Amino acid sequence: MNHPLRASQDAFGAFVPGAPVHVTGAASGPLAGRGFAAKDLFDIAGLVTGCGNPDWAASHAPAVAHADAVQALLDAGATLVGRSITDEISLGLLGRNQFHGTPVNPRAPERLPGGSSSGSAAAVAGRLADLALGTDSGGSVRVPASFCGLYGMRPTHGRISVRGLMTQSPSFDTVGLFAREPTLLATGYSLLLDDKSATAPVEQLLIAWDAFAISDAAVQDALRPAVARLKAVFPATEITLSEEGLPIWAERQRRLQQHEFGHTFRAWIDAYNPRFSFEVGRSLAMAALVAEEDLSAERAFRADVRAKILGRLDGRRLLCLPTTPILPPARGIPLSAMAEAGRRITELTGIAGLTGLPQISLPLGETGDGIPVGLSLIGWPGADEVLLKTAQALQAG
Amino acid sequence: MNHPLRASQDAFGAFVPGAPVHVTGAASGPLAGRGFAAKDLFDIAGLVTGCGNPDWAASHAPAVAHADAVQALLDAGATLVGRSITDEISLGLLGRNQFHGTPVNPRAPERLPGGSSSGSAAAVAGRLADLALGTDSGGSVRVPASFCGLYGMRPTHGRISVRGLMTQSPSFDTVGLFAREPTLLATGYSLLLDDKSATAPVEQLLIAWDAFAISDAAVQDALRPAVARLKAVFPATEITLSEEGLPIWAERQRRLQQHEFGHTFRAWIDAYNPRFSFEVGRSLAMAALVAEEDLSAERAFRADVRAKILGRLDGRRLLCLPTTPILPPARGIPLSAMAEAGRRITELTGIAGLTGLPQISLPLGETGDGIPVGLSLIGWPGADEVLLKTAQALQAG
Repeated sequence: MNHPLRASQDAFGAFVPGAPVHVTGAASGPLAGRGFAAKDLFDIAGLVTGCGNPDWAASHAPAVAHADAVQALLDAGATLVGRSITDEISLGLLGRNQFHGTPVNPRAPERLPGGSSSGSAAAVAGRLADLALGTDSGGSVRVPASFCGLYGMRPTHGRISVRGLMTQSPSFDTVGLFAREPTLLATGYSLLLDDKSATAPVEQLLIAWDAFAISDAAVQDALRPAVARLKAVFPATEITLSEEGLPIWAERQRRLQQHEFGHTFRAWIDAYNPRFSFEVGRSLAMAALVAEEDLSAERAFRADVRAKILGRLDGRRLLCLPTTPILPPARGIPLSAMAEAGRRITELTGIAGLTGLPQISLPLGETGDGIPVGLSLIGWPGADEVLLKTAQALQAG
Repeated sequence: MNHPLRASQDAFGAFVPGAPVHVTGAASGPLAGRGFAAKDLFDIAGLVTGCGNPDWAASHAPAVAHADAVQALLDAGATLVGRSITDEISLGLLGRNQFHGTPVNPRAPERLPGGSSSGSAAAVAGRLADLALGTDSGGSVRVPASFCGLYGMRPTHGRISVRGLMTQSPSFDTVGLFAREPTLLATGYSLLLDDKSATAPVEQLLIAWDAFAISDAAVQDALRPAVARLKAVFPATEITLSEEGLPIWAERQRRLQQHEFGHTFRAWIDAYNPRFSFEVGRSLAMAALVAEEDLSAERAFRADVRAKILGRLDGRRLLCLPTTPILPPARGIPLSAMAEAGRRITELTGIAGLTGLPQISLPLGETGDGIPVGLSLIGWPGADEVLLKTAQALQAG
């Protein structure tokens, strides 16, 4: 199908069509000489933040200031080299955008890049940028990191300012970064994270047996060597993470998130009747129904799951699982297959969303024909720095 | 909001943006010298039928032949002067299109033109064309006829060929015409209708009390003189049309229609994930759910309603009711108000949809400040010519 509004400016279709975006950073600092991209949800002073949808852009005024996260990277000497494509209003896990085009996955060009921070991942994997800002509410940093073979982290909920960006589901939304190597990722996060660091040593690795079991054989096979490496570094034990079953957790996560973004977008949709791809419009239509419901039982469930996992991690254990249970799907799959892929991905990415815990995706797996497969570590609240250090240690080791 | 694809070519924004469409008709015939417009659902040989949605256009091939209805008017000497805007894939009753723009209602420029045959009505009311082809599944000819002050008829279901046009709900879809005066409308229909005419005399007028009662006071007031005129021409009696209540009938009609268009569009949506306004995307998302249900109870209900009304009309009585229970809404109303307006309109337009009966909307009412209000007559199966003759007699009288 034609996409009349698409006009890719770069080799990977990673940046939003239109005039190039470039903001020079401070003359010196820990990121001097580095280029970064920012997802089209982050404010850049003087420009309209488009959020992946032309009707959002047309109904919003230019930003008066940079988003906090953008400002922090600029202040550290990095230069903003592009505004990266997002799934429409950040709703999506596969990286398709019917208005701006779907970025190319530089590591697997026939497959989807993952979303919603699709352009950020494509820009870093395609070496258009060294770092890229994304957001992760239900998996939007972790999934494209895994699909594009990058380091990417969802931080502890609340540890990075969301000021100056389009938020969708306040109790789920986080700001995340992508990089090709873990030391630069850690430097970037050190400029964004608040000071509540808790760098206890990791005493044990809990391997979530049920998370591996629901993953495709290709994912399990690709991750086997990396898991063996981890077991050589940390004492490890296999556990069953979810008594109720990960699909049940995912369903609760999805409903709670729908409830929140149903509220977030309701007034705007009512005023403007915006255009969306069918996939996103359907998601918003269902969310509008959920937004009217009383989800107190789901909230109690969420608190219970969080308490259980916190007990298991106990400030000294990490959880190990595949980032996604599937390989990146082919670019041309029908909507029904996209919906099924999204449902399955949420069975794993929903865990950190539901609990607010930090999760890093490590590009340590690969299929026989070179398709990247991410391995994830989930830490206790505030263990972001621990996860980043672990990533560096694994790379060095 | 900007509509980047909109580029009106005419004073009323009635025609689809793009290259002008013009097909000269036969040298002579009953419509020689007349210009007509065709809704963007009707095939025109060599062109892609866009159906009000750019992703429909991008995913379909050019038509190889004119639609039967277009060919019939061309053969009668009329010239096709434009392709008129439709609500996206014909789903809508108010005439808004977020891709092609919303045509202006020439009789009430601050108000909506009605839909889905919005551009056809605007073209005729704005004197860009003498006649215009539309379609009517749930009210899409009758509503814009009423809102724009035109004669417009939904024919008996099945009496006009739908070959060469995008159909949505086969057991509801009909082809209709608009005109500014009833004699030309009758000439046009004489070229389209099959030969099953049943021109019995009208013995009585049944005034649907409940249809007037649920209409706004402004509609009731505007129609009072016209109803008095009708009562002077025909013996009349007031009846309560629906024991169950017209809202119940409308709900059944809506579910049956959703069931059908849910099936119609399913494969295309799954393959292309097209872009829609939220209003239309939501409608399609809900329809996809209904398409999976067993509606045998609703079908039995429909047969029962039809049998009851046929008994009352008995091949010699006409039913009189407002075309819509509301005035044309203001152009800028929010989506929630649009949904409510659509729901209320269907309480009256759903009657003919549910029963397959012919209904003509007569531009015989007007508010104090000149807003058109249509009065409708519903006839028995095949009474299309009777309705057209009645319209001419009333105009003459």
